[in-house]
Amino acid sequence: MQFGSDNQVGASRQILEMIETANSGFTHGYGDDQWCAEAAGALKDVFSCELEVFFVATGTAANSLALSCLAKPWEAILCHHQAHILRDESTAPEFFSGGGRLMPISTQAGKLEPRHLEEYFRRTAQDPPHTARPGALSITQINEAGLVYSPTELSQLCSLAHEYEVSVHMDGARFANAVAALDCSPADLTWKAGVDVLSLGATKCGALMAEAVLFFNPEHSESFSYRRKRSGHLVSKGRFFGAQFTGWLKNDHWLELARHANSKAQQLEKRLVPNPSIPQIWPRQANELFVAMPQQLSDTLHDAGAEFYQWPNHALPEGITLKENEVFVRLVTSFITSDEHIDRVCELVDQYETFHQCV
Amino acid sequence: MQFGSDNQVGASRQILEMIETANSGFTHGYGDDQWCAEAAGALKDVFSCELEVFFVATGTAANSLALSCLAKPWEAILCHHQAHILRDESTAPEFFSGGGRLMPISTQAGKLEPRHLEEYFRRTAQDPPHTARPGALSITQINEAGLVYSPTELSQLCSLAHEYEVSVHMDGARFANAVAALDCSPADLTWKAGVDVLSLGATKCGALMAEAVLFFNPEHSESFSYRRKRSGHLVSKGRFFGAQFTGWLKNDHWLELARHANSKAQQLEKRLVPNPSIPQIWPRQANELFVAMPQQLSDTLHDAGAEFYQWPNHALPEGITLKENEVFVRLVTSFITSDEHIDRVCELVDQYETFHQCV
Amino acid sequence: MQFGSDNQVGASRQILEMIETANSGFTHGYGDDQWCAEAAGALKDVFSCELEVFFVATGTAANSLALSCLAKPWEAILCHHQAHILRDESTAPEFFSGGGRLMPISTQAGKLEPRHLEEYFRRTAQDPPHTARPGALSITQINEAGLVYSPTELSQLCSLAHEYEVSVHMDGARFANAVAALDCSPADLTWKAGVDVLSLGATKCGALMAEAVLFFNPEHSESFSYRRKRSGHLVSKGRFFGAQFTGWLKNDHWLELARHANSKAQQLEKRLVPNPSIPQIWPRQANELFVAMPQQLSDTLHDAGAEFYQWPNHALPEGITLKENEVFVRLVTSFITSDEHIDRVCELVDQYETFHQCV
Amino acid sequence: MQFGSDNQVGASRQILEMIETANSGFTHGYGDDQWCAEAAGALKDVFSCELEVFFVATGTAANSLALSCLAKPWEAILCHHQAHILRDESTAPEFFSGGGRLMPISTQAGKLEPRHLEEYFRRTAQDPPHTARPGALSITQINEAGLVYSPTELSQLCSLAHEYEVSVHMDGARFANAVAALDCSPADLTWKAGVDVLSLGATKCGALMAEAVLFFNPEHSESFSYRRKRSGHLVSKGRFFGAQFTGWLKNDHWLELARHANSKAQQLEKRLVPNPSIPQIWPRQANELFVAMPQQLSDTLHDAGAEFYQWPNHALPEGITLKENEVFVRLVTSFITSDEHIDRVCELVDQYETFHQCV
Repeated sequence: MQFGSDNQVGASRQILEMIETANSGFTHGYGDDQWCAEAAGALKDVFSCELEVFFVATGTAANSLALSCLAKPWEAILCHHQAHILRDESTAPEFFSGGGRLMPISTQAGKLEPRHLEEYFRRTAQDPPHTARPGALSITQINEAGLVYSPTELSQLCSLAHEYEVSVHMDGARFANAVAALDCSPADLTWKAGVDVLSLGATKCGALMAEAVLFFNPEHSESFSYRRKRSGHLVSKGRFFGAQFTGWLKNDHWLELARHANSKAQQLEKRLVPNPSIPQIWPRQANELFVAMPQQLSDTLHDAGAEFYQWPNHALPEGITLKENEVFVRLVTSFITSDEHIDRVCELVDQYETFHQCV
Repeated sequence: MQFGSDNQVGASRQILEMIETANSGFTHGYGDDQWCAEAAGALKDVFSCELEVFFVATGTAANSLALSCLAKPWEAILCHHQAHILRDESTAPEFFSGGGRLMPISTQAGKLEPRHLEEYFRRTAQDPPHTARPGALSITQINEAGLVYSPTELSQLCSLAHEYEVSVHMDGARFANAVAALDCSPADLTWKAGVDVLSLGATKCGALMAEAVLFFNPEHSESFSYRRKRSGHLVSKGRFFGAQFTGWLKNDHWLELARHANSKAQQLEKRLVPNPSIPQIWPRQANELFVAMPQQLSDTLHDAGAEFYQWPNHALPEGITLKENEVFVRLVTSFITSDEHIDRVCELVDQYETFHQCV
Repeated sequence: MQFGSDNQVGASRQILEMIETANSGFTHGYGDDQWCAEAAGALKDVFSCELEVFFVATGTAANSLALSCLAKPWEAILCHHQAHILRDESTAPEFFSGGGRLMPISTQAGKLEPRHLEEYFRRTAQDPPHTARPGALSITQINEAGLVYSPTELSQLCSLAHEYEVSVHMDGARFANAVAALDCSPADLTWKAGVDVLSLGATKCGALMAEAVLFFNPEHSESFSYRRKRSGHLVSKGRFFGAQFTGWLKNDHWLELARHANSKAQQLEKRLVPNPSIPQIWPRQANELFVAMPQQLSDTLHDAGAEFYQWPNHALPEGITLKENEVFVRLVTSFITSDEHIDRVCELVDQYETFHQCV
Repeated sequence: MQFGSDNQVGASRQILEMIETANSGFTHGYGDDQWCAEAAGALKDVFSCELEVFFVATGTAANSLALSCLAKPWEAILCHHQAHILRDESTAPEFFSGGGRLMPISTQAGKLEPRHLEEYFRRTAQDPPHTARPGALSITQINEAGLVYSPTELSQLCSLAHEYEVSVHMDGARFANAVAALDCSPADLTWKAGVDVLSLGATKCGALMAEAVLFFNPEHSESFSYRRKRSGHLVSKGRFFGAQFTGWLKNDHWLELARHANSKAQQLEKRLVPNPSIPQIWPRQANELFVAMPQQLSDTLHDAGAEFYQWPNHALPEGITLKENEVFVRLVTSFITSDEHIDRVCELVDQYETFHQCV
């Protein structure tokens, strides 16, 4: 009953095997090897375009390095006020950008919309150098409420941003889940919609530790190799990043893993949400389920060994307040979530419901 | 008719004369001189306490250096979402703090209140090192809406902050105007209320360029001299800061200047606000008047040579929306604002009113 | 014939197997798992002391994060003018320390000696805040000339540093090779000699990507977890660092790997150095051989597929100048260097010698 | 007998009067005023070219801001190992450049010469992103040994730098003294020789606190206004910088002040250096005299109220060692140094000599 996070599992078999394969023999260090070359080729195929790709070990590194290429130290990086880069990556954006500003767009909506940005863009354009104008916009796909941005939504955000000379970054820690959920092409969700740079996360979706930063606009990537090196993110045995991505992308393995996770979340939703004591907070669109439940039920599940996180109330959508003794929780499925896990948690919920309906 | 800002005037006579006096002869450089010593003594008298004082040339330097002593690079500095340090000092707080976070507290209220902070403090305490916990709170006195915080209000904010181990900085660019307005002691508005460090601005209130950073808690000031030096704010002929502050504080000159500015703003308020076409937006409490007026009146005044700034709509209080063709403006008085200036602008307004009432 | 660097090989079998073992099932993320706990325990055993340990993916991250805990942004970090942190890690030390200074100690000696430091320590203590006093000393073991520091040499450097309140960091990218070469205990080479923090590299000596930062003095480590997170070096699937170190340390595997590398370098030395055309530049003490050779021989070897780097002339010891058409080269052995590699390169050299002696 | 530093005096009468004049009335803030415009015009006349000019309060700010426009955070800034930016400005270059490297060129020569740079340029060009390539070269004029660089020497250094795509900054804290000493045009010493940006110091040569950064190459200045603002160096009452520079430059006042200082140093040299107990260490070329003297004489002078600094031995030229009980000292003259000061110090020296010759 592990629904804590998709980073609490190991790596997929296919990826481990590719690491084994890549292990033998000598190669040049620092990414100048056949495995990185193969992975780069695979990424170009998957995204149907030319691109610059750089590998790093963590999502925080991928996001912050990417953003530091887009925003100057006297500019702001805009993000949703629940964004992972704001809530969960310490002050990494400020550190990597040399003291740029991370600027939350406060909104009770689950996703950023053009109306949230327009007013901000307009007014901060006014008074340089006193006011920090926005240099970059960061969008999470799937986002922190488990929601996906459609190609149309992305296009609208990106065109507005570009109109104000603001570049667009996508935090794709769960990009695979978004592609699987929307069933549209990686290109449609990125460069075709106007995204300038993507942090493509493999770690949450099957790798050990491997993230790729993809630049669709080569002029943004000029300083990346210097920034990666001086931040300690240039790995000497680079082949192991190449091997992980090669294994991940081969034969659509990445989408297979993501589809599995998404379908298990759907299964969980179907069985949990009809319960009257478990109101759904955000629509489930990929592999994350946000629901409320009685504190007592939550305790019962935890006591029985279920893993999932209570979510902070400030992340609730506008107009939603919890009942007394109710908690907001997030359940995440992964590429190894099994029916057995789902069955067990649902049985516990059923028992709770039965007992409380009698009472 | 100069109501643009209190930094658009020169220095007071008494301060210039003190500079003349300090000019002759030799002294050691870098603040190790009799004038700085005299100014430090005067500040201790004025604030009735022991304190550590450091002089710098600008308010941005004073604020950012002070804050960098309170918050670590992986912590957040909280401020009102209209704060000067957020809106008008570029990314100085991030730069000086080594990439710490400046975190706006979004509120439609004119001033920060404990309820705005409490929820934020509580939730960010939870998850180190992922979330940036707050290291400092910055309060502006008088603030960006021209409002003063009373000693009681300050005490409440400071105790709450201290409860969560958050230190308190006061941006006192117009601290003199606050003391003059509240008619209470500098001590009551600072260390007695729990303020840990004050940026005390003399520039807007009569000096050429001189700001002091006052530490009421010496353990916060340990790194200041290093930070000031490496940011280029240690002036070699330090005597000129000492001289400005000595001249400013001598015989309550600073309060005299501030009282003049405040009383002129009051005069302006009395004559402008009764006009039906000039609704007051925020109560006037010191030397800043925030009103709305028809765009046409604003244009007329500007055309006649009046100087004042249109203020951004995002700074309007909750529930207030402008009428069509109305603009939000700020009028600031200074230590040299004369009756003549006020008379002329009021006459222009009267003419406009008369003409438009006839119509 | 791969003598380019010990980071051009894969990982050892035992380490890969431990990754396999650790892969199954769920664990908490971010290093809060049994594998990291086991690795930490093993490190305490190996170093015979209590210590704080943090894992990261690269040596640059390990070194820079460690140093940023020792030196303030207005202090200097001293190192040998050939140090890896100066020559090969971009401006990572400056970046991580928030703009501290990396200060090379220029010396023609292969290793730092107390006399090089003493004068520097004395004079920079004089004039704060104008001069950047040293906050940390970084020593590489084995160092950039392939030389080892004995426990006595380390003790002398560390006591001198501590006398001036300078903390000591050891860059141990090849620490295993030093332990194997000196045949003394890890404790003798670190905390017993006065080293405050060690970057212990597993990558060059058998791991995929895994470095540990060991703090022998817990008060230095307070900020580490924050610094690691905000620099993107906190890996979510932390178990894989734990697994690598567990596998590396188990049954003295790490020393076995290092001894292999060292003995192969010794073998190479024995066969190459007697050749009149291959003068030895630095004594070989671990797994690196520094020699000069005719450009033509170097070309011949490269053409035949041998991998090794030409080394810069500025790294030559005092008083040594190359003959015309001679180049300075480094040959590095690793845990997989085989007799066959050595035989082949030595045969090529023999052929060259024979041919040129005839001529 | 004040020979400590030229920053231990006040401002010249003409500059103070210009401040008085500029004091009255209203102007826009932040440098958008007639005085700054007038000063900028005067600078263009003096340097006979178009240029971008920015004013700040300190030399450290001028130098560091200028350098941060030339070198990227992953590049090195080269300077003489006795440079003021290295020895006396804390870690300001690292701070402002976002963690770039300040790299001393160690040389026993008093001035930088092309041969010192060439080898460095060549080797650091090799290995990006591992090695920090040089982005800027900083030359001090007059330098830290009181020596001037001739136009020819500057041209050689600048062409070599430009050949390697390294930009050139001149620290002109005493530029006026250099112009006065060399009797050549400001243009010849800067842009005509290839200098890209000049920190032009007025403070040491007659102003209260006023330095100008002059960009001869406008593409380097793009980010300056942002960098100045976020580092707290944009002064609100900017007119006072404009007034100081206007007063300084008017009717060659600046050169008059510098010539006075230089001629007094020459006078001092003529009377002191012939004394057998006072060997000259560096040739006097402007307003600084570097000599050795017996510790006892130095003590006698200090006891009699003379102010001058003992200079560190590491700044001695190659091959020069002090006799036992001898100290290395620096004597600096300023625009107010009087014959009386010189007479008194020389009389004390004469007495000492007479006494000791008798003995």
